[in-house]
Amino acid sequence: MSLSEFDVIQKYFSNLTAGRADVKLGIGDDCALLQPTADQLLAVSTDTLVEGRHFLPGADPYSLGHKSLAVNLSDLAAMGAEPLWVSLALTLPSVDENWLGAFSKGFSNLARQFSLQLIGGDLTQGPLTISISIHGQVSEQQVLKRSGASENELVCVTGTLGDAAFALELLQKGIKPVEEQQIALDRPQPRLQTAQKLRGQASAAIDISDGLLADLGHICESSSVGAEIYLDQLPLSEAVREAVLPDHRWELPLSGGDDYELCFTLPESHQDLIDSWNRNNECLITIIGKTRSHKGIQCLLPDGSLWTPKTKGFEHFS
Amino acid sequence: MSLSEFDVIQKYFSNLTAGRADVKLGIGDDCALLQPTADQLLAVSTDTLVEGRHFLPGADPYSLGHKSLAVNLSDLAAMGAEPLWVSLALTLPSVDENWLGAFSKGFSNLARQFSLQLIGGDLTQGPLTISISIHGQVSEQQVLKRSGASENELVCVTGTLGDAAFALELLQKGIKPVEEQQIALDRPQPRLQTAQKLRGQASAAIDISDGLLADLGHICESSSVGAEIYLDQLPLSEAVREAVLPDHRWELPLSGGDDYELCFTLPESHQDLIDSWNRNNECLITIIGKTRSHKGIQCLLPDGSLWTPKTKGFEHFS
Repeated sequence: MSLSEFDVIQKYFSNLTAGRADVKLGIGDDCALLQPTADQLLAVSTDTLVEGRHFLPGADPYSLGHKSLAVNLSDLAAMGAEPLWVSLALTLPSVDENWLGAFSKGFSNLARQFSLQLIGGDLTQGPLTISISIHGQVSEQQVLKRSGASENELVCVTGTLGDAAFALELLQKGIKPVEEQQIALDRPQPRLQTAQKLRGQASAAIDISDGLLADLGHICESSSVGAEIYLDQLPLSEAVREAVLPDHRWELPLSGGDDYELCFTLPESHQDLIDSWNRNNECLITIIGKTRSHKGIQCLLPDGSLWTPKTKGFEHFS
Repeated sequence: MSLSEFDVIQKYFSNLTAGRADVKLGIGDDCALLQPTADQLLAVSTDTLVEGRHFLPGADPYSLGHKSLAVNLSDLAAMGAEPLWVSLALTLPSVDENWLGAFSKGFSNLARQFSLQLIGGDLTQGPLTISISIHGQVSEQQVLKRSGASENELVCVTGTLGDAAFALELLQKGIKPVEEQQIALDRPQPRLQTAQKLRGQASAAIDISDGLLADLGHICESSSVGAEIYLDQLPLSEAVREAVLPDHRWELPLSGGDDYELCFTLPESHQDLIDSWNRNNECLITIIGKTRSHKGIQCLLPDGSLWTPKTKGFEHFS
């Protein structure tokens, strides 16, 4: 343990500590000083990843650098916000330069995609914990909240569902997942490009990191609507489809968690937009259901019968 | 472990989640939405406290709630910024309701002094770690940076020095400190009232959480000046004075760390302000030295001879 906090920033994160004109004073004083844009709201979110809880001990540090930032960027995407600044509080058992080199590379490669600047943080000694606060901006007119859905709107999701949960399930059995699921688990891509298109169009949005049912449930509660989901419409990768269909293991895509996809509602009159969005997008957007006036979420099998989930989703302390 | 993250916020922090008109959307969506004041800079800082590193295992949770917020507020004070919003990322081994009740009380009692609103955070399971991001505002004209000092200015500090380090030293020897030192260690008072007076007057400021020599060193480096410190002018409590004087243990007030006091520089022409500030202030302000053109910090004994420190201050990973 020979590097100071200052040394670590200089050596591993200096490519992220400059560049934005709205950062009036970056790392190196008691606070960063920032100049928010006058007509924009500031969107702020914090997420913490703890070893043994959110990732397996010994997890690949490059992936961890990527993922810890991705889960925070995903919160900005869910609000339709544009990324600005990030703070990184890193608690490490020791200063392992190989680990730091790989972690910072994963973190930086993703941050630079979005012109994100590192404005502060803290380096402390202790059990491996990564806590990130992220800042973005969005206009009051275009912001995507959980509370804007009405009944009889389309329920849509980005990407495919259940890949991360399936990868974790395999790893816990000692089986190596195929690349598609491994990447979904290790290096999820925050849906910021899609979010940009949704601004001012979607009526409500959320990221489904706690599982589709739990998170769509939040939209429904906040918006005072219910929803029905057509299970045969769920976008599933080949591997997940094979795992789900034989035994109706719909919990995997519905409640698996760790999917950093967006779920959003869209007025039916905007349905045509989806085709145009899908033409040149980072991922597929799929209609999976409709909002309804009755409370709760109903999952419908292809024959129209109801499927009842056994679990709701990931709760941190349950 | 029966309470969810939502339950914990509702039960223990609901008195902090509303009230400010500049919070457009508080806890409960993917991000908080905030409306910064148009002509102000945003000041942001993050600090993490880890059990066993920054506080003793089994530390009183009320004090911990107070202190974890106080160290962050102290960073705002050092910039002359007015507190606005705070995010709390709490990693807990388990949901202990007694612990949470006391922690949240210590946190809330301090937060309410400054109309601070809780805008987000994260509750995760793992080794006890408290990571806080705080937001404040200050105008570009009045902000206090580390880099504004010139030579031949007064070097001043708030409060007394070395109390927290002395309390910790006693505790580690199994001796109970007197109340004054125990409070300095457990419930430091961020110097926000003083900071308000310093805005636009002090040329540079910093909080001396890593020890006076290390932190004044940061002002000197950032401002390209040096300083001389008159050891007989250091403001010491009775107990610390008795511990320091017999053996010239000046390391205690100079490098002890965990003093959440401010060190600032002031043009000599402003010297009269100190008397008026001291008349009705939260703590005493004391002139302890002068900035000089030569590099480095010299500590002068009453007879004018030099005293050379053996340690520099607290470094997280040294």
